[in-house]
Amino acid sequence: MGGSSPCASCKLLRRRCTKGCIFAPFFPADEPHKFAIVHKVFGASNVSKMLQEIPFHQRADAASSLVYEASARMRDPVYGCVGAISYLQNQVSQLQMQLAIAQAEILCMQMQQGGPCPPPNAPTRTRSRHPSPIIATSRASPAS
Amino acid sequence: MGGSSPCASCKLLRRRCTKGCIFAPFFPADEPHKFAIVHKVFGASNVSKMLQEIPFHQRADAASSLVYEASARMRDPVYGCVGAISYLQNQVSQLQMQLAIAQAEILCMQMQQGGPCPPPNAPTRTRSRHPSPIIATSRASPAS
Repeated sequence: MGGSSPCASCKLLRRRCTKGCIFAPFFPADEPHKFAIVHKVFGASNVSKMLQEIPFHQRADAASSLVYEASARMRDPVYGCVGAISYLQNQVSQLQMQLAIAQAEILCMQMQQGGPCPPPNAPTRTRSRHPSPIIATSRASPAS
Repeated sequence: MGGSSPCASCKLLRRRCTKGCIFAPFFPADEPHKFAIVHKVFGASNVSKMLQEIPFHQRADAASSLVYEASARMRDPVYGCVGAISYLQNQVSQLQMQLAIAQAEILCMQMQQGGPCPPPNAPTRTRSRHPSPIIATSRASPAS
């Protein structure tokens, strides 16, 4: 950030790090791997464009989420972050099922004087704000 | 995919679609938006490299996951897929808590003759295979 000490991005791209460098605040020289992975997955030009389209106060979060996403893609080249989403969606479904069974059991115990227990209710599905991964059916959990 | 009918990628990139085109099997001409968004977020060159590094039988899943990830980034430029992961992790935590409370209630009812109820157990944490998003603390749920 200022010529003599270029940020991680300008160092990797072998260019002069100017005062207004879009990368410098989020990709410091002492963490070169962070820019290296976003560069490999998204490309420096795309990362620059994405950061420019976001208000400054949100750019640190955006840079962190890009690093997280790129790391996931490096670990799991087929599914990336979507593998984690698929895994978590399965976990939510299982927990909803276990909770419905436990709640039915409580109801059953409360009604123990009133004849046979009712069948457990189907789990109440919490509508996710996120659409299911398109590829969610092809595997239950991500490759480790 | 054969010159006369280029795939969505070659059409967008204005190049000749050869028989061995890396994109053609996964980005057909009748779904141009799919390639348009992965091109915008990852860049055609990176998508090509990523597909080439994956065995052929896994490329369809990889292409789908890239489309899903790019769509998430277009909807939520700051958090992308990581917003969905953060949201689902919160949902898992809440469900684990509710389940622990329900299980404690069941235990309490089973022990109802044996004096006061024990305090509810802390939820049993299922160890996630995925690290927490770095930025998970800055928001509870993604922008819709």
